[in-house]
Amino acid sequence: MSDVTITNSAQGSYPTAAGGRPSKVAIIGAGAVGSTLAYACVTKGVAREIVLQDIAKEKVEAEALDIAQGIQFTSAGSVLGSDDPEICRDADVVAITAGAKQKPGQSRLELAGATVGIMEKILPKLVEVAPNAIFLLVANPVDVVTYCAKKITGLPENQVFGSGTVLDTARMRYLVSLETGTATQNIHGYIAGEHGDSEVPLWSTTGIGGVPITQWGKTLDGGVFDQEKRDRIAHDVVRSAYRIIEGKGATNYAVGLAVQRIISAVLNDEQRVLTISPLLDNWHGISDVCMAVPTIVGREGAGRRLELPLTLDERDRLTASAERLREVARGLGY
Amino acid sequence: MSDVTITNSAQGSYPTAAGGRPSKVAIIGAGAVGSTLAYACVTKGVAREIVLQDIAKEKVEAEALDIAQGIQFTSAGSVLGSDDPEICRDADVVAITAGAKQKPGQSRLELAGATVGIMEKILPKLVEVAPNAIFLLVANPVDVVTYCAKKITGLPENQVFGSGTVLDTARMRYLVSLETGTATQNIHGYIAGEHGDSEVPLWSTTGIGGVPITQWGKTLDGGVFDQEKRDRIAHDVVRSAYRIIEGKGATNYAVGLAVQRIISAVLNDEQRVLTISPLLDNWHGISDVCMAVPTIVGREGAGRRLELPLTLDERDRLTASAERLREVARGLGY
Amino acid sequence: MSDVTITNSAQGSYPTAAGGRPSKVAIIGAGAVGSTLAYACVTKGVAREIVLQDIAKEKVEAEALDIAQGIQFTSAGSVLGSDDPEICRDADVVAITAGAKQKPGQSRLELAGATVGIMEKILPKLVEVAPNAIFLLVANPVDVVTYCAKKITGLPENQVFGSGTVLDTARMRYLVSLETGTATQNIHGYIAGEHGDSEVPLWSTTGIGGVPITQWGKTLDGGVFDQEKRDRIAHDVVRSAYRIIEGKGATNYAVGLAVQRIISAVLNDEQRVLTISPLLDNWHGISDVCMAVPTIVGREGAGRRLELPLTLDERDRLTASAERLREVARGLGY
Amino acid sequence: MSDVTITNSAQGSYPTAAGGRPSKVAIIGAGAVGSTLAYACVTKGVAREIVLQDIAKEKVEAEALDIAQGIQFTSAGSVLGSDDPEICRDADVVAITAGAKQKPGQSRLELAGATVGIMEKILPKLVEVAPNAIFLLVANPVDVVTYCAKKITGLPENQVFGSGTVLDTARMRYLVSLETGTATQNIHGYIAGEHGDSEVPLWSTTGIGGVPITQWGKTLDGGVFDQEKRDRIAHDVVRSAYRIIEGKGATNYAVGLAVQRIISAVLNDEQRVLTISPLLDNWHGISDVCMAVPTIVGREGAGRRLELPLTLDERDRLTASAERLREVARGLGY
Repeated sequence: MSDVTITNSAQGSYPTAAGGRPSKVAIIGAGAVGSTLAYACVTKGVAREIVLQDIAKEKVEAEALDIAQGIQFTSAGSVLGSDDPEICRDADVVAITAGAKQKPGQSRLELAGATVGIMEKILPKLVEVAPNAIFLLVANPVDVVTYCAKKITGLPENQVFGSGTVLDTARMRYLVSLETGTATQNIHGYIAGEHGDSEVPLWSTTGIGGVPITQWGKTLDGGVFDQEKRDRIAHDVVRSAYRIIEGKGATNYAVGLAVQRIISAVLNDEQRVLTISPLLDNWHGISDVCMAVPTIVGREGAGRRLELPLTLDERDRLTASAERLREVARGLGY
Repeated sequence: MSDVTITNSAQGSYPTAAGGRPSKVAIIGAGAVGSTLAYACVTKGVAREIVLQDIAKEKVEAEALDIAQGIQFTSAGSVLGSDDPEICRDADVVAITAGAKQKPGQSRLELAGATVGIMEKILPKLVEVAPNAIFLLVANPVDVVTYCAKKITGLPENQVFGSGTVLDTARMRYLVSLETGTATQNIHGYIAGEHGDSEVPLWSTTGIGGVPITQWGKTLDGGVFDQEKRDRIAHDVVRSAYRIIEGKGATNYAVGLAVQRIISAVLNDEQRVLTISPLLDNWHGISDVCMAVPTIVGREGAGRRLELPLTLDERDRLTASAERLREVARGLGY
Repeated sequence: MSDVTITNSAQGSYPTAAGGRPSKVAIIGAGAVGSTLAYACVTKGVAREIVLQDIAKEKVEAEALDIAQGIQFTSAGSVLGSDDPEICRDADVVAITAGAKQKPGQSRLELAGATVGIMEKILPKLVEVAPNAIFLLVANPVDVVTYCAKKITGLPENQVFGSGTVLDTARMRYLVSLETGTATQNIHGYIAGEHGDSEVPLWSTTGIGGVPITQWGKTLDGGVFDQEKRDRIAHDVVRSAYRIIEGKGATNYAVGLAVQRIISAVLNDEQRVLTISPLLDNWHGISDVCMAVPTIVGREGAGRRLELPLTLDERDRLTASAERLREVARGLGY
Repeated sequence: MSDVTITNSAQGSYPTAAGGRPSKVAIIGAGAVGSTLAYACVTKGVAREIVLQDIAKEKVEAEALDIAQGIQFTSAGSVLGSDDPEICRDADVVAITAGAKQKPGQSRLELAGATVGIMEKILPKLVEVAPNAIFLLVANPVDVVTYCAKKITGLPENQVFGSGTVLDTARMRYLVSLETGTATQNIHGYIAGEHGDSEVPLWSTTGIGGVPITQWGKTLDGGVFDQEKRDRIAHDVVRSAYRIIEGKGATNYAVGLAVQRIISAVLNDEQRVLTISPLLDNWHGISDVCMAVPTIVGREGAGRRLELPLTLDERDRLTASAERLREVARGLGY
């Protein structure tokens, strides 16, 4: 397998793991999401060493080799693919994209159960080879899968979290920036809750360069950020994933970029606020569920969950979202 | 289609087209290579505006939207997908990845003919909407397709060229860097000729930090760069694409990065030497064929073709490679 | 002078001016601030072409040549120095660092008058050679100098503004990030008003990842963001410039980075909110003065001035700051 | 002094030291070269932690604070200034810019002696606090100072080297790129020997994209790379430093960028060929002297010195350059 290993003495700078080893990211699952995530990590140069693991040996080796051949046009280090989980040894981050494929007639809950079943099988070995890694769940339904993964691994709650609504939040900010002609970097606001239909945009704390969104005044189309416009934005955020799946059968590009962003925040110890999905313990009264809330992310994984001021409506909807997630987990025996 | 357009007032810096418009790259073909190329261009931020065109309307819109949703994690500008070639209007670079799919029982020549047939159909319209673009052919067999595209369009020879052996050259340098523990940036050398089985590594001018490769002495494995080691490297370069296709059915990642590298050299007017495939006119006696030779690439496209000193053997093999390519073109009526 | 020109066909990407020319930044004054600003612009690669103008011919040529010699270690384009304002022709941004030097016994007002006198002399010629440039005033007292420059040039109000409190705001955010262990990128808040002793931190709209600063709870030192802590931070922001001047006689490094940040926002048309110092017209009732308020900055220069909610105290202090600035301008006959 | 420390939880990626500490660069001497080097390191983000040490306490603290205030506009980590060498503890690279100032009537040899005297005083303490650091000498006459520093410290020969002709080589490549309109990245060639008047451009191995310079043909001005043109280029390389000193009294900008380039090569373990000045042992028959030759630079410091093919004239001139350097060292008692 030695010719699959591609090491590049490139010029980039990488974060390094505790102990001075070069930083290492392990990606589990070489499907569209997993291999695109590996490609995004390499193209962005987020870690010196990236490994891709999948039970399909030829497939995973081919994906890794295909990425590795282009590594010289990036500042990344090395890419290696294998069917052996041993390849993940001492990883700093383990991102899990592997999940079950929907079978005809299978319900949503059955699908969730199948993916959780995969977690039960693969997580113990991954924890064994990378006991200090941050475990980042990407497989859907991500909040439920993360909750189960937390229970399966028994790892501390900072060490296991899901990708949450990082992509949804970015999409919402982007749509607001389009309405106002302001840089996305100056749009502040979050989508919280389930990564899915019950997610909740926190409009009451959303602002543009310090101006509350409801006080912004005229948008570029002559309207204002009234209930209708806000609802349309929230709807577009949820709807867009469906549109992509209808057109190409899967989503992989945007999620690849969003997840590499989370990985960067961990490896560089950025202490950045991201709407990842960690285990909650009395966050605005919500406990014992994994769902997206603004959380400080750094080398230790999920840190402080920020308690933003919420309206009663926002809080009610988040509580309902949590309830819904908890029920699914219960249905799966967790 | 307005919600497919995603414009990001990001912080990156982009080259701008003549006339002050933001720079624009059009990619034709939303298959694995085309959409991965668009993703690589966005992730690297090579142009402010990237458009993807394909006859499959839903597919191309979905690929563009999937990329666009992640654009905020990059420094790129906008991504737009459409089945209408009009979307390519005023592009600065048109990269053509669209080609025929191999049918059972179809010969290599028949396949080449089918791809050239596609070029005959799409190029006139593209030249009409983007008459000043640099046309970069990526579809295989790239050298023959480029030659035919030059004839079909009638554009000046600087304006039409193929991706050649840019990826092959990078791969060769990488393998030499692995043997010596030296940065790939200090390995200088080229693979020239056909992008394919008859390609020729120019060992006689290959060096490591100024030291001719044959005078380097011991490599890391205790060997030297003798004929056997050089042949093995050359073989691995050609062989690796086949290995990837066997494992995953296609190659897309490395080629995406390599082609975005060429596009960068054009848009930033880098005047960099790259082994693209331009039309040759008495290059070491070789004429009337497109094949890879070290060529200066900048805003005007393919510039001076460098005449490196060649050994007789290198020259004979390049002449043979050219002859082979010329014959295929003749067989297609060009 | 031809050997002073250093053009580098580097790999970076640069914004381009309207009309397709490469983007061009002109810096007036080759003192510590001006030449450090040129160095920061080159090291960061913000523009393809940077020119430095000063009446001291040998000095300005030497500063430019010293920077140009290192240009290959950057992605910048070219640096040129001259005593001839003609060198600034067609610049996209003109940053003015030239000012009077304090003479013994000279009052603060006299010093301001001397600098404004320099503006009266140099601005007409600069407007003549670069009539479409954004004029960015950096010379102190920057708010008063900007107001006079606006009157002297008669240019539209978007086209002339001062560097304001961009550096002060960054410093405040940084100090808050130190107190909380959160990324500076998640600290949102501004310092507005005069760049100087009467500047006003807008604490009521300052937040950390969406949490109002007063609701943050415990800081890393066990305290809270009470009045005392906030006053200490505000004091440190103002005080630090004095400490640097005591130790090395001038400030140049941080201001160089802050001003290149503003220039980037213009050239890349970022539409970013920055506390630059534009002319105000009924901003919270304040008019006919240049002072720092959160303003959207893009290719057209100073755009919308954001009206954040203010407390009565914040508004009173800003009104007082404006009054103070207006008086100085009146004292200078403007 | 705690308020001098500025730590930035920024988004960049940094190389990390062995043992997992963040990478640390110590710069000795807060004069124009030392503080500009610190500024270049911060602006480029080459290390997470940068410390500046000088015996002038107020001066060094002010320089560090001035740089630190701008750190948020960069991806760097922290900057700290102190008069206590303890601040350099566990640095990964120690760059020494401190040297003697020329006194009236003092000969060149006396000046060299004074700088070596400073090395005798400061190096033992620095080796004590940072025994595993790479020691990079920048103070002039750099080759002699490096040789003496090697003897004073008794450190292994990989661990101590001078900045050599890295800047001179870059300048030569740049001038050749101007003559040919080719990217500097495609100009390959070196200036070796003393960093100073006896330095030797190695024209016989200089090429442009693989074409030997003498076979390039017409340059942009219609000439060729004949003896006259080559001599003029070599002369301009040496002459330019004098021109800068005449105009502004010192050189600091380009040297800051060049030295940060060397530091990057070390921290990122780039294995890049750079013309640093290491101790030679039978390099083309030259021994027991420090002078610039193409050397592989990585985390272990100075690696293999490359033996390029030389003409007899090149070899004779390098031998003479070495002899000249050896004499100066002997004159200082080394």
